[in-house]
Amino acid sequence: MGYSRYNSENPSATSAEELAADYVGIERFFSPKNVVVIGASNSPRRFGYNVMKNLIEAGFDGNIFPVSLKENIVFEKPAYKSVLDISDPIDLAIIIIPAAIVSSTVEECGKKGIKAISVLSGGFSEVGTKGAELEKEVTRVAEKYGIRIVGPNCVGTMNTHRDLNASFVMYSVKGNMGFITQSGALGAACSYVSKREKLGFSKFVNLGNACDVSVPEIVEYYARDPDTNVIGIYLEGVKDGREFLDAISETTPIKPIVVVKAGRTEQGAKAASSHTGSLAGSDRIYKALFKQKGVVRANSLFELIDVAKAFTKQPLPKGKRVGIITNAGGAGVLATDACSDNGLTVPSLTNETVKALRSFLPDVAILNNPVDIIASANKDCYLKTTEIVAADKNIDALIVNCVVPTFLGMKPSEHAEGVAGAYHNKVKEYGKPVVSCWMAGELAEPGREILEKIGIPSYSSPEKAAIALSYMADYREFVNRVKKGK
Amino acid sequence: MGYSRYNSENPSATSAEELAADYVGIERFFSPKNVVVIGASNSPRRFGYNVMKNLIEAGFDGNIFPVSLKENIVFEKPAYKSVLDISDPIDLAIIIIPAAIVSSTVEECGKKGIKAISVLSGGFSEVGTKGAELEKEVTRVAEKYGIRIVGPNCVGTMNTHRDLNASFVMYSVKGNMGFITQSGALGAACSYVSKREKLGFSKFVNLGNACDVSVPEIVEYYARDPDTNVIGIYLEGVKDGREFLDAISETTPIKPIVVVKAGRTEQGAKAASSHTGSLAGSDRIYKALFKQKGVVRANSLFELIDVAKAFTKQPLPKGKRVGIITNAGGAGVLATDACSDNGLTVPSLTNETVKALRSFLPDVAILNNPVDIIASANKDCYLKTTEIVAADKNIDALIVNCVVPTFLGMKPSEHAEGVAGAYHNKVKEYGKPVVSCWMAGELAEPGREILEKIGIPSYSSPEKAAIALSYMADYREFVNRVKKGK
Repeated sequence: MGYSRYNSENPSATSAEELAADYVGIERFFSPKNVVVIGASNSPRRFGYNVMKNLIEAGFDGNIFPVSLKENIVFEKPAYKSVLDISDPIDLAIIIIPAAIVSSTVEECGKKGIKAISVLSGGFSEVGTKGAELEKEVTRVAEKYGIRIVGPNCVGTMNTHRDLNASFVMYSVKGNMGFITQSGALGAACSYVSKREKLGFSKFVNLGNACDVSVPEIVEYYARDPDTNVIGIYLEGVKDGREFLDAISETTPIKPIVVVKAGRTEQGAKAASSHTGSLAGSDRIYKALFKQKGVVRANSLFELIDVAKAFTKQPLPKGKRVGIITNAGGAGVLATDACSDNGLTVPSLTNETVKALRSFLPDVAILNNPVDIIASANKDCYLKTTEIVAADKNIDALIVNCVVPTFLGMKPSEHAEGVAGAYHNKVKEYGKPVVSCWMAGELAEPGREILEKIGIPSYSSPEKAAIALSYMADYREFVNRVKKGK
Repeated sequence: MGYSRYNSENPSATSAEELAADYVGIERFFSPKNVVVIGASNSPRRFGYNVMKNLIEAGFDGNIFPVSLKENIVFEKPAYKSVLDISDPIDLAIIIIPAAIVSSTVEECGKKGIKAISVLSGGFSEVGTKGAELEKEVTRVAEKYGIRIVGPNCVGTMNTHRDLNASFVMYSVKGNMGFITQSGALGAACSYVSKREKLGFSKFVNLGNACDVSVPEIVEYYARDPDTNVIGIYLEGVKDGREFLDAISETTPIKPIVVVKAGRTEQGAKAASSHTGSLAGSDRIYKALFKQKGVVRANSLFELIDVAKAFTKQPLPKGKRVGIITNAGGAGVLATDACSDNGLTVPSLTNETVKALRSFLPDVAILNNPVDIIASANKDCYLKTTEIVAADKNIDALIVNCVVPTFLGMKPSEHAEGVAGAYHNKVKEYGKPVVSCWMAGELAEPGREILEKIGIPSYSSPEKAAIALSYMADYREFVNRVKKGK
């Protein structure tokens, strides 16, 4: 719970100044001018090594001050014994030292005038009563000095638009999803998977035990962050239901939120409670809440990534009518099934569309929707078909399928390069979302990479493409409802 | 429809000799001693080039005879003008020439004594009435000579245990799934994906228009094939419902069948009908049929691969009680949710198990199920925990999760190598299925590769692992019911 805001005497009377102050308070974790690493180390077997390495490798352009009781030079930088020995002002402290000495270190940070601290150390409330007492003491000291705390027991923060990796896990690729995770490890895993799936993160935070800075505060911060256009959350449970509800209510009308809510099932909730001590809460309540507030609920981390990618790269569809283009009949059938399963329709094309397609497609092509442009289809065929189908008034969104051809002299990567290249600068003109499904395992990767680069989300299966469009269409409906005043 | 068997006067009176004859008839497509390619070519822009290249590259140890009207040497082999010019006996002909001259070529093959022909050429019933007539004529000629036909309009056959790629698509990796696909392109895509997912194929066939050799015949053939221990089918519709029902009824009690049935939805069925002319049929009928006959129905090609992999690599679970081991709490929660979603339970471990785990796991480890052995867990910790949980009488199957560690000096590939290496030769001793979920995008790949090599199916998400176990448990229940005489 963010005491600085929510523990105030009248939590609802948040003025513009207070909001701005909150924003600056959180901003220090993502855009500090300089950073101190308390517990910095040259030993690869210590987290303080990974934090130093990550900060340097990500290319952070501010000063990095190591603090170490044992070493005089850390990563070729002079190390200090205490933050109080540093003469420069400090925006953000990253603490990765034993739990027992954290509160006294926070006290020093307070004296130094530091207002933001990420406590990466474990050994607090997650390990029992003794740890919980240590955590309470840290919170008390921080409150005394008006310090905001991320953590303890967390992996830290990242801001790819400031080259900041203030965590001990691998850096995310640059992009536009703001990510919040209640599990550090899953957050890291999600970041690695995102890299492969070409979903970039704008910012990343793992709040750990969340003794101060809370999920709702980060949601509100991301809502106002210009580098973030979709918010992804791995959630096990919320401590502060009211604040969470307020934060999502304010955010979803302007930015989509995609949530994986773990502990959905009774057994899962029990496991979540062992894990983070979160009360997972009745899933029915979350379900109703998410639906009412337009929160997109993904069924897995992969689905979160799939959907977020579509949100960051493509416009929202005006409706649920999908045009499918494929060079393999079977892929078209699977895509149609997947659309139907997810509340989308695959309507007939207009006579004009069919006529226009007939004028250049081979005789054996199928001009129904899905349009089967057959295996020999080249880039011109793909582009022309897509332009014609995109212009059809019966169509709100497109799925372009390709089973990567490996015969007739066609080379998978050349083919993909050709097709993607042809779409370059065109896709935006349609004003309708286009997603793609390139099927062929490793062979499809060069094609998928190119498509992602030009802003066409690329999936490995038609089901994923349909699910992404379906969530986008639902979200668009929600936004329309909000605009009409419900 | 296989006329040689099913068009006989009394189709139900199938004697052992007839069955054996059928087996040999189909066997030629998968284990020919030698092969003729009619329409072989040196030009990469022709299918006849891909077929020659594929046969040679796969390392087929029989003779390959090219037949070409235009070229004298094809792939450094002397080319013949007609099969009748070849003096050696021929087991299998692969025809890839214009539709109009296929029937006269089949006639020549008949005169030559060839009993198996894959007609890869298109331009038959899939393109309309004219093509349908050509197809009828091909069938008539084949019948006259007692020739079995795979196709027309197909990609061909493969047998990885004989180094045979008698198709124009890329070769599958060697393994134990017999695959049947009604879509050539999707079959190829599935093969490429399988390669990445480390599911090997024993045999592969795409039947195209299926003028003769039918899905049920291949199912029966795979049922008796010693290299095949799971059968995968991409199905749009069956022409011969009775034969299909008989084939699956005979097969599922001895080998699992995993089916992706496309055209499940009304719109999908319409698309399937445009694609292969299959009558997709009411999905309710398929659903009931599959359930009654113990056919595993996968929801996507990826799911088919995921499930088949578990079937080929691990024993069936005796029940639905899953033990989850994880080095990241969140992954354990997601796995628990996924188990619950799929009809599996995550029961408490016995006191003995908990006691045994407590004896060596760190204090902050969680000894409930899921067992959280925390991020620092090394290979010994993984192995010991797995052995103890596998021995628990409350547990029928295991999911081992790992969010690949990248800190504290642990290197992802070394870690995976260590963990997988530790399991080597151990997993079989448990007599319970073990599946794994290594999460971390590209970083997880070296680990997943090693796990697959030692026979532990490896997934990229806990949901996939749970789904695989769930289908295995369902199949085991089916087999038990059959054994008890229903």
